[in-house]
Amino acid sequence: MSVRTALAFRSFTRSFTMAGARSASTKAFFANEPAQPAVKSQFPGPETVKATQELAKVWDTRAVNIMGDYPKSVGNYIVDVDGNTLLDVYAQIASIPVGYNNETLAKAAATPQMVNALINRPATGNFPSNDWAEILATGVLKVAPKGLNNVFTALSGSDANELAYKAAFMYRRMQDRGGPDVDFTQEEMDSAMKNQTPGAPQLAILSFKSAFHGRLFGSLSTTRSKPIHKLDFPAFDWPQASFPQLKYPLDQHAAENAAAEQASIDEVEQLIKSWHSPVCAVMVEPIQSEGGDNHASADFFRKLRAVTKKHNVLLIVDEVQTGIGATGKFWAHEHWDLQDPPDMVTFSKKAQTAGYYYTDALRPNKPYRQFNTWLGDPARCLVFRAIIEEIERLDLVNHTARVGDYLYAKLEALAAKYPEHFQNLRGKGQGTFIAFDSPKRDQFLVKAKTNGINIGGSGASAVRLRPMLTLQEHHCDILVEALEKTAKDL
Amino acid sequence: MSVRTALAFRSFTRSFTMAGARSASTKAFFANEPAQPAVKSQFPGPETVKATQELAKVWDTRAVNIMGDYPKSVGNYIVDVDGNTLLDVYAQIASIPVGYNNETLAKAAATPQMVNALINRPATGNFPSNDWAEILATGVLKVAPKGLNNVFTALSGSDANELAYKAAFMYRRMQDRGGPDVDFTQEEMDSAMKNQTPGAPQLAILSFKSAFHGRLFGSLSTTRSKPIHKLDFPAFDWPQASFPQLKYPLDQHAAENAAAEQASIDEVEQLIKSWHSPVCAVMVEPIQSEGGDNHASADFFRKLRAVTKKHNVLLIVDEVQTGIGATGKFWAHEHWDLQDPPDMVTFSKKAQTAGYYYTDALRPNKPYRQFNTWLGDPARCLVFRAIIEEIERLDLVNHTARVGDYLYAKLEALAAKYPEHFQNLRGKGQGTFIAFDSPKRDQFLVKAKTNGINIGGSGASAVRLRPMLTLQEHHCDILVEALEKTAKDL
Repeated sequence: MSVRTALAFRSFTRSFTMAGARSASTKAFFANEPAQPAVKSQFPGPETVKATQELAKVWDTRAVNIMGDYPKSVGNYIVDVDGNTLLDVYAQIASIPVGYNNETLAKAAATPQMVNALINRPATGNFPSNDWAEILATGVLKVAPKGLNNVFTALSGSDANELAYKAAFMYRRMQDRGGPDVDFTQEEMDSAMKNQTPGAPQLAILSFKSAFHGRLFGSLSTTRSKPIHKLDFPAFDWPQASFPQLKYPLDQHAAENAAAEQASIDEVEQLIKSWHSPVCAVMVEPIQSEGGDNHASADFFRKLRAVTKKHNVLLIVDEVQTGIGATGKFWAHEHWDLQDPPDMVTFSKKAQTAGYYYTDALRPNKPYRQFNTWLGDPARCLVFRAIIEEIERLDLVNHTARVGDYLYAKLEALAAKYPEHFQNLRGKGQGTFIAFDSPKRDQFLVKAKTNGINIGGSGASAVRLRPMLTLQEHHCDILVEALEKTAKDL
Repeated sequence: MSVRTALAFRSFTRSFTMAGARSASTKAFFANEPAQPAVKSQFPGPETVKATQELAKVWDTRAVNIMGDYPKSVGNYIVDVDGNTLLDVYAQIASIPVGYNNETLAKAAATPQMVNALINRPATGNFPSNDWAEILATGVLKVAPKGLNNVFTALSGSDANELAYKAAFMYRRMQDRGGPDVDFTQEEMDSAMKNQTPGAPQLAILSFKSAFHGRLFGSLSTTRSKPIHKLDFPAFDWPQASFPQLKYPLDQHAAENAAAEQASIDEVEQLIKSWHSPVCAVMVEPIQSEGGDNHASADFFRKLRAVTKKHNVLLIVDEVQTGIGATGKFWAHEHWDLQDPPDMVTFSKKAQTAGYYYTDALRPNKPYRQFNTWLGDPARCLVFRAIIEEIERLDLVNHTARVGDYLYAKLEALAAKYPEHFQNLRGKGQGTFIAFDSPKRDQFLVKAKTNGINIGGSGASAVRLRPMLTLQEHHCDILVEALEKTAKDL
């Protein structure tokens, strides 16, 4: 560590000790969690460099940020191989829900049922395990969104989204044919084998500009985040609508924002009516996450539900990043108070498994149409069950709503003090799913690490907070203080 | 159990006891494995019906075949909820490699390293775990096919295949541009975001008729197995070549078969030269598995390698079903003795994880082009490592080559005795990856179960054997006797 870094580190440690002291009244969820970050090296530290070089012999390490020492990480703190202890508000790209080395999860991971799921993995469609109904009922289905009683499990968010698209296409063609009992024609069967219409029809999914729905070929055709995600890959000719670009603070731009949302709804309707192939479903994130933390109002989503209903188009809500409590509701779309639920909701990340929930109407008319060898992973479904238990035990969804409000207020004060570094603060009332824009964003992220915070970006200039549901007020104090220091350092 | 079934069952048990006695000299891999099948109910049994009805409340059960009681299943025997004990030569659609409740796997599943992988799942591209290099080196990379030193891990065979296609497309476009250092144009970046050329180019993967490569949108565009897999889903306009349809016995149709293979190679070359979009890769299974167990000679594959090399087209070998020892080689393509290795090999199923192996040339020119949150699952990679250990400990690949020869000879004798039920016996010298056609195939599969055997089909009329690598000679005796009984029963 250079002298300059060492000095910076000392003053930083002192200030964090103070922050910790201020909120000592809060009881920590993790008894053995560090009291504060501890930065011991520059980044990347010498051990990180060494380990990354070793890994680079067999693995593409160009995107490596931190080489984690996970057995040593606790709760909201990630520890790296250099012994740096960082408050982690990025949480494995929003996918660690209840802290590192959570004891409830550790117990679930060491049960005979888990060992069975790991070593006797069934082809669940043909040979389900006799505990599968119980695993679903006490886990993934226990938290099913209102109105969606069925689930099809998958392995990743991208996988889940593609399965939802397949369900949408089957549903549309079933309606075209005149119902579930009308059989395929010979022409359809022959042409499907050649990837040609009518068996392999030209049908579309509509998504939004800046959306991210995954990187497999179908999901990538609906992803509109960054060129680097899409370049050189064939894609389906599907439509994209503008996502409203809200101006902040919201209360100062109410009319303008309402107009932007209405324009977006109008564009969706126009595309549904005019696109050269039938639009079977609209795919939308409650908050565009990879695309830069772009929000829209509950009113926008209610209108989106109405316009899709009007044109017999399915509405699929991609809750891969927003789901499982982070917005202060278990599912972010609960914020919308929809009268008619979405037709499908997809999930992954914090669930540690994946899949889509769906209405009875979307069950395929024949078996083996939605099918693959494993249909997900029961081991990962058991982890999700333990996550749900932990969320219930600690009431983490309501907790996150409260902590989010606390954090938002502190960030609002920070933004007032440093308006050049904290712009367009957003996510009020959305739990800890908070973001702001920072013109020197990439430097901000790097600098935050030297100040003890692991934090991520999204879109072109957003800093996005994706802490775990176990983030508490005293962590927020540490976080905000470090962000202030980061702004000062820039 | 009806009286008739009971009588049938008694005579069946007796005959199996005899079969067991004949090969008592073989030492069983599993000390606690049943000596023989035990059929206690008709199919589906009462407990299976009850459990399936329960599961049907929340899950599509129309494809359910057996409701497994996996904690009670041992080695090569699957036990269902009615207590039926079946010799399992289908093995969860070819995906259980070393037996149910294998002790080596159980030990690996109960380690602190496994618990860590399950509860602290990293976003491996950005925040790899410090044991990731070791997990790869001692596991998935230890069995890397010759010439392919890199791996990109994935979650399923379909996922792995799509990632390989993405690698192929990036490689082709990099060459078109003039090398890895030539940057994307603004036009490419803008058009990619609209799913349009040139950024989202019209490029193709060539696959074979009857091929199965998965069910996501890109992989499904190369799958040509059955209409039910493809109907109603948009697909890319990609070419398919005829796969040689060999006639059996091979030694009586040598010239004819060689001509069929040459015709197929010619068709591949013609399609590469004439298809309306550039063919970037040819995708092929060493043995078409879901498509009906269609084999081709090593000579065919050497010619395929030559014709792809000649036209600068990549060769991807889909070893999702053939890999991990079942053909008597660790990778089925080792049977071909290629001078130039394939450019990529994909794997899953018996590996219990997934991914593609690739040459150095296929590493993308920039980070984040081949990327997603998890990049596979370290927990499943640890299971694969234990599988590899078990394969090495028991020398299961060579074992499977030997047992396959033993089994093939017995089946050959059976086919001579019952030519109407055992047609086109194939897989000689391919370990236990053996199949035959049976005109009453679907009845055959059902009846085999009442005779104590869980066995699967593929294609229109094939009965395919997909036993575990732990299948031994005494199991083969039991199997062949039950198959004979099944033929007699039909």
